[in-house]
Amino acid sequence: MSTNQPAVSRFPVPDISDMPQDIRERILAVQEKSGFIPNVFLVLAHRPDEFRAFFAYHDALMDKPGNLTKAEREMIVVATSNLNQCQYCVVAHGAILRIRAKNPLIADQVAVNYRKADITPRQKAMIDFAVKVSQQAYAVGESDLDILKSHDFTEEDVWDIAAISAFFGMSNRLANVTSMRPNDEFYALGR
Amino acid sequence: MSTNQPAVSRFPVPDISDMPQDIRERILAVQEKSGFIPNVFLVLAHRPDEFRAFFAYHDALMDKPGNLTKAEREMIVVATSNLNQCQYCVVAHGAILRIRAKNPLIADQVAVNYRKADITPRQKAMIDFAVKVSQQAYAVGESDLDILKSHDFTEEDVWDIAAISAFFGMSNRLANVTSMRPNDEFYALGR
Amino acid sequence: MSTNQPAVSRFPVPDISDMPQDIRERILAVQEKSGFIPNVFLVLAHRPDEFRAFFAYHDALMDKPGNLTKAEREMIVVATSNLNQCQYCVVAHGAILRIRAKNPLIADQVAVNYRKADITPRQKAMIDFAVKVSQQAYAVGESDLDILKSHDFTEEDVWDIAAISAFFGMSNRLANVTSMRPNDEFYALGR
Amino acid sequence: MSTNQPAVSRFPVPDISDMPQDIRERILAVQEKSGFIPNVFLVLAHRPDEFRAFFAYHDALMDKPGNLTKAEREMIVVATSNLNQCQYCVVAHGAILRIRAKNPLIADQVAVNYRKADITPRQKAMIDFAVKVSQQAYAVGESDLDILKSHDFTEEDVWDIAAISAFFGMSNRLANVTSMRPNDEFYALGR
Amino acid sequence: MSTNQPAVSRFPVPDISDMPQDIRERILAVQEKSGFIPNVFLVLAHRPDEFRAFFAYHDALMDKPGNLTKAEREMIVVATSNLNQCQYCVVAHGAILRIRAKNPLIADQVAVNYRKADITPRQKAMIDFAVKVSQQAYAVGESDLDILKSHDFTEEDVWDIAAISAFFGMSNRLANVTSMRPNDEFYALGR
Amino acid sequence: MSTNQPAVSRFPVPDISDMPQDIRERILAVQEKSGFIPNVFLVLAHRPDEFRAFFAYHDALMDKPGNLTKAEREMIVVATSNLNQCQYCVVAHGAILRIRAKNPLIADQVAVNYRKADITPRQKAMIDFAVKVSQQAYAVGESDLDILKSHDFTEEDVWDIAAISAFFGMSNRLANVTSMRPNDEFYALGR
Repeated sequence: MSTNQPAVSRFPVPDISDMPQDIRERILAVQEKSGFIPNVFLVLAHRPDEFRAFFAYHDALMDKPGNLTKAEREMIVVATSNLNQCQYCVVAHGAILRIRAKNPLIADQVAVNYRKADITPRQKAMIDFAVKVSQQAYAVGESDLDILKSHDFTEEDVWDIAAISAFFGMSNRLANVTSMRPNDEFYALGR
Repeated sequence: MSTNQPAVSRFPVPDISDMPQDIRERILAVQEKSGFIPNVFLVLAHRPDEFRAFFAYHDALMDKPGNLTKAEREMIVVATSNLNQCQYCVVAHGAILRIRAKNPLIADQVAVNYRKADITPRQKAMIDFAVKVSQQAYAVGESDLDILKSHDFTEEDVWDIAAISAFFGMSNRLANVTSMRPNDEFYALGR
Repeated sequence: MSTNQPAVSRFPVPDISDMPQDIRERILAVQEKSGFIPNVFLVLAHRPDEFRAFFAYHDALMDKPGNLTKAEREMIVVATSNLNQCQYCVVAHGAILRIRAKNPLIADQVAVNYRKADITPRQKAMIDFAVKVSQQAYAVGESDLDILKSHDFTEEDVWDIAAISAFFGMSNRLANVTSMRPNDEFYALGR
Repeated sequence: MSTNQPAVSRFPVPDISDMPQDIRERILAVQEKSGFIPNVFLVLAHRPDEFRAFFAYHDALMDKPGNLTKAEREMIVVATSNLNQCQYCVVAHGAILRIRAKNPLIADQVAVNYRKADITPRQKAMIDFAVKVSQQAYAVGESDLDILKSHDFTEEDVWDIAAISAFFGMSNRLANVTSMRPNDEFYALGR
Repeated sequence: MSTNQPAVSRFPVPDISDMPQDIRERILAVQEKSGFIPNVFLVLAHRPDEFRAFFAYHDALMDKPGNLTKAEREMIVVATSNLNQCQYCVVAHGAILRIRAKNPLIADQVAVNYRKADITPRQKAMIDFAVKVSQQAYAVGESDLDILKSHDFTEEDVWDIAAISAFFGMSNRLANVTSMRPNDEFYALGR
Repeated sequence: MSTNQPAVSRFPVPDISDMPQDIRERILAVQEKSGFIPNVFLVLAHRPDEFRAFFAYHDALMDKPGNLTKAEREMIVVATSNLNQCQYCVVAHGAILRIRAKNPLIADQVAVNYRKADITPRQKAMIDFAVKVSQQAYAVGESDLDILKSHDFTEEDVWDIAAISAFFGMSNRLANVTSMRPNDEFYALGR
């Protein structure tokens, strides 16, 4: 990190050249594709094994086939992350949501109060459930699943929504404890 | 409102030509200056007396002289409004904050987690207090004021911070109940 | 303020003779009518512009025509103010509620637990909504309005209930931060 | 209960003549002394064994010798009962507090926000602790006791404060579930 | 208490030989029957009158005839006590629940999340109500009772559930403030 | 799953013979070592990629070298999982904690209220931090880290505590949504 730059993490961040090869290659591939390295890659590289597991989990949820669109998955991330007050996740995934949904307004709407967002009632039901998983998973019961099924979500979709909410709940906590800084590039993407 | 436009309010919105003259003039002046009419003016025009009192109060807090900069006042609005999940207030005042602070990143940072924002420790103490007023005003006591004073806030500044937090707490509730829609123009302003 | 009297406010309170004429006249008119000056007038007179906007707003909500009775408006104030732990508002508006409702018991009942008060089911639905606006306005939705409509509240009544709850939410915060002291006269009024 | 009177309890209330002799005698003694029968006696008489244990416990805490004055014990009851939204307890013990303290204002002050009441810093520390016992007893620790000791409360006083808070927490729940109605007489007593 | 033993209470614990005779006899009878003296008897013996009232109340609720089985009464204690984070009550009454239900798994299941426990829907409804009494008794209303009645609970059962929840809410607070230590014997009983 | 057995998951559970080889091998190895297959392996095998990432992450946190003992890591899991009301995690990791700590009492103590457990002040500070990460990660700041450092925790230990709390927060949510059932074997292990 050059001087005068705000820190990317409260913890040490390794130089890319010092990272294990598989991690370095993943990071360089992301940089190639995105034009910059999202800071989550740098922050977690401090712990290579956790880095590998984190991104394997991330990809298993966010890149897999399934009925939820890519934009819908990002809606879940953005809505639950704002309730968890996670700056990195809202800013970074807000950018991805704008791009996925080709809609410059949607991320801010979903982040602040998804009930008022330009999304479908089905998507609001999806986020209602994701928020319940995030905040009161202990109380999730059959009546919650019935609501989702009435909106034509399958049992597999239920798992997807819950797992995305749960995974990013973990991510939100890591980002807040590490003071993970969103890259400046994210703020304007997709607007 | 033209057809196919999402509603600006859950309640009726009068035509500008039907508004009382003083309200129409204020609205046209804002439109002249901003290039568009922020929806809060249209939504509240449904109740002319409340409109007049609301904006008189707003101006008394936000446009008055005082030690808090215009940007700092907007920080208070943005941070407390996100905790109240007020879409209109975060989007609209986020735009104003970016402009006042000449900083395209600051609004999203302050909205999601001001503790991680690129602001001074003094400004964080200011928002800590504003958030306490917003969420637990009953417990505000001398020790809170002592912290503010240790950051060189005066007694008058304490009133300003508290009053801005309290006023926008009201505004947040009105916006949520009316489903006040942020103008599309706000999202990109100052980025 | 004479010596040995507990302070009316944590902030400076101007002498009546030093107040702007319009404020002084309003205060003297209240004193004429009530026999004493409710402290909210003295406390807010420290900020004349805010004083004017506050009472203009207050009057626009509490003195306007409408379907809600004067007593019902005060019920909203008393119930939400106790949840916000606002001593001034519960004591002062409790007195007004007793007088408006010609009922010496109602204020304490509504303040502590309106669900057990001697009021109608329609009034309980009104306060349920006011409390939701006060505590979770972000979650207010059509189902809340449907309940109110089933009790024959109109759309305008919904606005009134919400606006009174929101306005006194602001007032509660100002009173708590200023340590606004209820006048001794209020406690026994209407009993 | 005569017709047209609001019910004293959601559960059956026995006729005094049908009560076990010891309970009847206690109730008649209270009526003799107070001029009326506080409804808690009638409501709990539905369960004679619980009645006996309840009042034995009550007397062991409220009538025993000790450093806490009678008025201070009632302050604990009134402050914690309002947070628990117990109408019977706030109204009935508010009356007793006014009488014990010979102060017509104190009950409403302590009920709504004891931090602003006309009581000593020592009494505020006492209520701070009672409220913590009522709301977060799991987190009570040595630092809480140190604060009490710094105000010259003994270890026995700590037990008294905690036990009164805990006992009336039970009482608050019973009163809310039974819809125990405060007697009309309480509202004006001691004002 | 012998040396090297962790303290049973933050407060003084009397020697059995110094206790009033009725208390000593009750304790010796329990010891005879159980093989050890549950610490709650020792801790509360510091206050003989409160000891007597506490156990009279306990017995009136837990040993009386009624429709709730002994195991069901213990389920209420275990579920609500864990939400109150009361170590003594969960460990001691968990042991009793295992014994009463002749089920080595049930106490841990009910303590952590009764919604997932091997109990009947009727028992889950019973605990739902007990938890509402414990956490939000102010909001208990007819709709709660209707649910219980749909599960064939009588009005007397409603009282029993509520009273057990309320009584152990008091007990939880006393145990947390006194740092009442569960006897080592409880942990393995009934497994 | 044989008939008459309670379901292990609300979602489908594959037969071991149908699982991908690496997953089957891991499961058989666990069975070999433990004598039974902990249900988390069966439940997550429904999603092989998530299974692999989950256990890679788990092992990276729980099996890695570091200053936190194995027992301390389990304390974090048990304390935070009970606050999240996760039956599977408290029962299964409670068993592991008893074994790691060679202490039959510790798991129940730490689960219900770690502040009263037979652990060191340093371990209580560790759990205080883990609980804050679990419940209010947004508010974690330098003062929290200072407390940990005063107990001789290093920066790497801070990461470990936070990551374990965050990872099991995810696990708690997955277990609650899937209704993951603890194996009967866990309840008695290590007692």
